[in-house]
Amino acid sequence: MQMEVNEERLIGMIERLAEFNETPGCGITRFSYSDLDRQAKDYIGSICKEMDLKVSVDQIGNIRARYEGTDPDLAPVWIGSHLDSVPNGGKYDGIVGAASSLEVLRVFHENGIKPIRPVELVLFAEEEGSNFGTTMIGSKALAGKYDKDYLKELKTEAGETAYDVIRRFGLDPERVKECRLNPGDVHAMVELHIEQGAVLDNEKLTIGVVQVIAGMHTLRITLRGFSDHAGTTPMNMRKDPMAAAAKLICAIEQYAREEVYASTVATVGEIECSPNKPNVIPQIVQFSVDIRDVCEDGMEKVIDFIQEKCREMGETTGVAAEVTEIGKSECIRLCPRITELIEEVTAKKGLPYKRMNSGAVHDAAMMTAVTDVGMIFVPSVDGRSHTAEEYTAEGDIKKGADVLLETVRQLTAGRSL
Amino acid sequence: MQMEVNEERLIGMIERLAEFNETPGCGITRFSYSDLDRQAKDYIGSICKEMDLKVSVDQIGNIRARYEGTDPDLAPVWIGSHLDSVPNGGKYDGIVGAASSLEVLRVFHENGIKPIRPVELVLFAEEEGSNFGTTMIGSKALAGKYDKDYLKELKTEAGETAYDVIRRFGLDPERVKECRLNPGDVHAMVELHIEQGAVLDNEKLTIGVVQVIAGMHTLRITLRGFSDHAGTTPMNMRKDPMAAAAKLICAIEQYAREEVYASTVATVGEIECSPNKPNVIPQIVQFSVDIRDVCEDGMEKVIDFIQEKCREMGETTGVAAEVTEIGKSECIRLCPRITELIEEVTAKKGLPYKRMNSGAVHDAAMMTAVTDVGMIFVPSVDGRSHTAEEYTAEGDIKKGADVLLETVRQLTAGRSL
Repeated sequence: MQMEVNEERLIGMIERLAEFNETPGCGITRFSYSDLDRQAKDYIGSICKEMDLKVSVDQIGNIRARYEGTDPDLAPVWIGSHLDSVPNGGKYDGIVGAASSLEVLRVFHENGIKPIRPVELVLFAEEEGSNFGTTMIGSKALAGKYDKDYLKELKTEAGETAYDVIRRFGLDPERVKECRLNPGDVHAMVELHIEQGAVLDNEKLTIGVVQVIAGMHTLRITLRGFSDHAGTTPMNMRKDPMAAAAKLICAIEQYAREEVYASTVATVGEIECSPNKPNVIPQIVQFSVDIRDVCEDGMEKVIDFIQEKCREMGETTGVAAEVTEIGKSECIRLCPRITELIEEVTAKKGLPYKRMNSGAVHDAAMMTAVTDVGMIFVPSVDGRSHTAEEYTAEGDIKKGADVLLETVRQLTAGRSL
Repeated sequence: MQMEVNEERLIGMIERLAEFNETPGCGITRFSYSDLDRQAKDYIGSICKEMDLKVSVDQIGNIRARYEGTDPDLAPVWIGSHLDSVPNGGKYDGIVGAASSLEVLRVFHENGIKPIRPVELVLFAEEEGSNFGTTMIGSKALAGKYDKDYLKELKTEAGETAYDVIRRFGLDPERVKECRLNPGDVHAMVELHIEQGAVLDNEKLTIGVVQVIAGMHTLRITLRGFSDHAGTTPMNMRKDPMAAAAKLICAIEQYAREEVYASTVATVGEIECSPNKPNVIPQIVQFSVDIRDVCEDGMEKVIDFIQEKCREMGETTGVAAEVTEIGKSECIRLCPRITELIEEVTAKKGLPYKRMNSGAVHDAAMMTAVTDVGMIFVPSVDGRSHTAEEYTAEGDIKKGADVLLETVRQLTAGRSL
């Protein structure tokens, strides 16, 4: 008989983690580098301590807890996810993977499993970008995607640099380069995550075996008009950046919806207006555009369209439009060696599953730069995510964790796989 | 020879008042009930003290300084304006009228003028609505337009009530009713103000004699959608309140520009998005619409259009749209007795002038509820206002103040006018 995870214990951890929350009653708000982040990690640390796992934290805040292998010189298999949330988000995003990975180690521990390879639980720092508007700070550091100077450019809404926030948290961002992994440092990485879309829920499936992670381009559009009194400036004498922003947002939404691929999405989720007073024609309006697709050229079409529309806007209305890229990740195909193993494990358990793509980007995508990666999805009811209504059924979480458990068992049982 | 104001002294007061500023280098920011507001009023108070004027403050923060008449039992003539600014506004809005009114009293004082009627300088509190999003709190109290409970409903962005802000400033909002004027308490009111539009500047005129003050309706549109992950929700499965807001803003702008009167304006100057993160489809988007016209039915057409479009939005997109009226003032015709006197004085001085309307609402509009009111406009270069670029030429300010001086002299020289 195969081992299984302890559903009650696993769900208990998820419920407990939901208590580390700045906004009780209004979804989950737990930013990296906050007191609640520290408390949540202390809670996980206390469970790791009970099992005598060696816990370490790198200088960007990624946490690792090591379950030793019989051959400690072999590269470890990593399992894990992130603990941070968007503002007023749900209690499953990130947490399902983090808690299930810890549960896998608890099952290993209580069954006295002696894997040949070590297994490491990893908790990536700052996945959601809630602090600085830039996602996956932790896994990007592991993949060597930036240096310390970059952390001085990223800022919170209040204007504090990432560098200072991280230092205030007790870490040393000056040494961020030391986080960087070399190829071969990690044998493989498997991340379990909620789907955050409605595909599995609509098709009544339990497991998604991720093939491709969608790429993402995040743009900031800045429109500079002419601030004036709202009562005394005739409509035809205005250079109103709000009217220009509204036209652009309409055009972008319609283009992404009707003119590209079914997989193409574009979202305006953030807008700022200055001076933002009802009786003043704005001077500056800025908004973000989050563009994602599993094909690079879908995203390129949207970006070209936006560039063209912004040029037109400047010419026809006199409102200057500037396009800045503030974030980018490419479409990533996960490792067949791992995804095929996940599929085999899932099929053997008789669970209904499908091969699918991920519309969301994950730390797993960054990790492909340094190791072989696989991802397991469990269903999100109605596809809700990044909101208080986010929900994944307990039984589905348990089955996802079981697939993770068996996948990790096989990946660590020998030297070859 | 007629008396004239002292241009150097007048401009000196305007420059000095511009120093009470929270945002040096970025326009003028001076909110009512702030420390800078207190300092600016102390400065004016010190000048009033030099002239032995009796200064009083009511419980909402309106200030009066009385130049006594030979018949103190006669109702006074009021002159004045406001000292507060929008965020990053200009140094002439309100200040030109406040400083010129004080200068009129200085000329009276140094020439030993003994008017039969008293003259009172009035500085209205919180004209711009910068604190609570609602304009003319001071003059509305004088006109008896609200009671103390209303002040508990108005809130700053940080959530503090107007009631608490005003009490913290050392006033007693509990007694706001005592501010209320009775008909007959004030004989007449004249406000000098910058035009805040480009009419006088374009036509190379010095004085505008205001006939009608445009009415204003301020609406708040609240769009409630369905917050979801920006990467995993296909375009055709979204209920995106940002896309809905953009469509409405486009429609409102186009309708006000093309379908109503040349005098009709509609402005979206404020927008809020929640949770306002690039990677989250918003849950709620709120924006303001400031609608103004010198004909009531122009505003009604725009409001009807917005109501209809919001209904349609709910039906076609599933994004519920709620329309709330957050402010309203009617079109107001000023008193012919006063406007004709201003016109006569201006014509006698040989100044180029025109009868015109005001697109902006002013404290003068509120005062029509309790007395006979006139308004004098001086030109705004390029019509710029509510911005750091706001400018009125010194010579024009001086001429406007001269018209005010002579108008007040005539209004106070006898019992009848």
